[in-house]
Amino acid sequence: MNLFELSTEIFENIQNTAPVVHNISNYVTATDCANITLACGGAPTMADDPEEVAEVASACHASVINMGNTGGYFEESMLQTGLANNRIGHPLILDPVGAGGSVRRNAVLEHLMEQLHFSIIRGNISEIKYLGSKHASAKGVDANKNDLASESNIQDIAAYAKSLSAKLDSIIAISGPIDVVANADTAYLIRNGHPLMSRVTGTGCMLSSVLGVFAAANPNHLLEASAVAISAYGYAGELAYQKMLKTQGGTGSLRTFLIDYMSNINAEQWKQGAKVTI
Amino acid sequence: MNLFELSTEIFENIQNTAPVVHNISNYVTATDCANITLACGGAPTMADDPEEVAEVASACHASVINMGNTGGYFEESMLQTGLANNRIGHPLILDPVGAGGSVRRNAVLEHLMEQLHFSIIRGNISEIKYLGSKHASAKGVDANKNDLASESNIQDIAAYAKSLSAKLDSIIAISGPIDVVANADTAYLIRNGHPLMSRVTGTGCMLSSVLGVFAAANPNHLLEASAVAISAYGYAGELAYQKMLKTQGGTGSLRTFLIDYMSNINAEQWKQGAKVTI
Amino acid sequence: MNLFELSTEIFENIQNTAPVVHNISNYVTATDCANITLACGGAPTMADDPEEVAEVASACHASVINMGNTGGYFEESMLQTGLANNRIGHPLILDPVGAGGSVRRNAVLEHLMEQLHFSIIRGNISEIKYLGSKHASAKGVDANKNDLASESNIQDIAAYAKSLSAKLDSIIAISGPIDVVANADTAYLIRNGHPLMSRVTGTGCMLSSVLGVFAAANPNHLLEASAVAISAYGYAGELAYQKMLKTQGGTGSLRTFLIDYMSNINAEQWKQGAKVTI
Repeated sequence: MNLFELSTEIFENIQNTAPVVHNISNYVTATDCANITLACGGAPTMADDPEEVAEVASACHASVINMGNTGGYFEESMLQTGLANNRIGHPLILDPVGAGGSVRRNAVLEHLMEQLHFSIIRGNISEIKYLGSKHASAKGVDANKNDLASESNIQDIAAYAKSLSAKLDSIIAISGPIDVVANADTAYLIRNGHPLMSRVTGTGCMLSSVLGVFAAANPNHLLEASAVAISAYGYAGELAYQKMLKTQGGTGSLRTFLIDYMSNINAEQWKQGAKVTI
Repeated sequence: MNLFELSTEIFENIQNTAPVVHNISNYVTATDCANITLACGGAPTMADDPEEVAEVASACHASVINMGNTGGYFEESMLQTGLANNRIGHPLILDPVGAGGSVRRNAVLEHLMEQLHFSIIRGNISEIKYLGSKHASAKGVDANKNDLASESNIQDIAAYAKSLSAKLDSIIAISGPIDVVANADTAYLIRNGHPLMSRVTGTGCMLSSVLGVFAAANPNHLLEASAVAISAYGYAGELAYQKMLKTQGGTGSLRTFLIDYMSNINAEQWKQGAKVTI
Repeated sequence: MNLFELSTEIFENIQNTAPVVHNISNYVTATDCANITLACGGAPTMADDPEEVAEVASACHASVINMGNTGGYFEESMLQTGLANNRIGHPLILDPVGAGGSVRRNAVLEHLMEQLHFSIIRGNISEIKYLGSKHASAKGVDANKNDLASESNIQDIAAYAKSLSAKLDSIIAISGPIDVVANADTAYLIRNGHPLMSRVTGTGCMLSSVLGVFAAANPNHLLEASAVAISAYGYAGELAYQKMLKTQGGTGSLRTFLIDYMSNINAEQWKQGAKVTI
């Protein structure tokens, strides 16, 4: 069954399940992560107290671990969330925010990778390359420009994603001008989205939360659900950009409209805007 | 004096006092709680450091304790805020976010209920029922659907709110399709609001902050001020929903417009949209 | 060279550098601080873990220390950020949120002032006066009304800013109905902005983040870059207010539009709206 045929089921599963998704987030993007989770049909719980996360995660359909905040009790919360989730076998998504960016951050990532199995790992090319190579080339949370996906290197990036997926037994999603999402055998290339989305904070974090909803409701089609989620989110960004121009707005409006379009998208609309190839 | 006559005074008191309201909030909804506090005429202070909250709370007109974040020093901050507030006798509002949702969360709630007296407690039906019965039926922070208020069970819920109010000596506000706010003798039923508000994170938290402003400026009319606050907030949500439709927006715009309408509402406008019965 | 001539270079430097600015922020306004940083051409990193901030700050073009959150590890994070920044000599901006508001907060400020040198300090009149006099007259984070800048006392405030600048060897920026930014020799008076901006939480915090971007890209023209930044931000607020009226919005829309206009402003547009005198 191809992605277009499957997509109807993927969206319906979200609507029928209304999955509860647990996010260990960070205070810069948590509000937007909760709102995009609601927008695309999930119910967020953002509990982060290490004394309750195992119980909370166990009662949810999936968990998203966003590594944005490493201070205080957050490392313990991420770990307890992941362990509880792995025990019950629900989808577990990792967003390795800023991987490669500091010794501390890399140590937290190492710790999580040792102890947990992730169903899906989503980051920008620099974060994902660090994850693979343990060798950083990123400044802050932005991708190094030399690494960014383009038509000339996209096949290399897709091959890299597939090999990393095989190594980690995780679906690998790499965000960039062209998005890639791959398991060991198949890589989807996604040409949705708009460059101005990178001028809104948390657009990466929000996408990881969207992946949490799509994965939670579609545990048996994780790769396909991820491809649809990434494409739908990018398409919502394109529509948001068009509306931003039309209303003579800027990046504040872009953020609002992105959530607007995600709250209205369904399988039929997605098919009209989808730009996905294998 | 009926609620409509009193409402003019209630709104004027806010305008004349511009009450400073202290919120112990959580990082998912704190920005929106601060903005809605400003929108409806209050001045927020969101100080949460346990070493300063007693001093800060003592200098304010009211405090709102939102139990969303239980990690780290937050339990101590909630407790110190409440104790300082109780000492000076200013209105103290509790939002028992996720009550019943985890062992840890229930222990924090138990601790707060033992040590503090709350003027107003506002939650969804599951949270409030847990508070009454110490027996949870909620998943995450959403109300259990079987408990939701409808025309067929609203009198039962109102009776429950009154009896719980008598037991705890607190005004009890229960949010749902029909809102209830009651003291031991009187229950107001409020049919404002729109279901899509539940697809925006923090709409409950924001309402608790709004109650903080209305209570801070109207300490001698807590029940009536609470009824007007809940109805005004719901009416702002209805207007926001209409504007969302008109501008072909979604839940991102709904969030923005909700704050917009709260920043513009006054007694005259509220009277045009109020749907409150006893 | 006057400010208008220099402004072209100031905006170009931001565009050419796309400076990475490190913000130690607080969870009430962090999202908006990150978004306004992006909007005006910077790349934010909001890392706050005391174990990584020195490394992160050292890799950035400037750091902004917002004192909003004093709880937990934040005092240590602010200190480590400032020390690392002072070592390499990049611009360091302080926003002394709520200075004078509590014993705890004052102790943190004292600690920071002893250990660090700040390139720019921006606050409202009460915060800045406390900084100078160690004597508080502010409630919460709002300026005491008696202190607010007006045409009758603005020359006194400008003289105060210059003398405080000489004493601390920091540029002093005082936000209010008329903004002042001064070094020991020169004070710019800025009459941009709109009073309703004070009904949006974080408008002060956001301005400090904007100063971080302008300073990071213009380390050799800190005073002029600060004056342009404050004026541009105020002008964006005026435009946002006009659009808010036109779209019949309120303070929710004002917040969004403020970020919109900051994301679109350039030297030419700024010159059309600038109201800056010496």
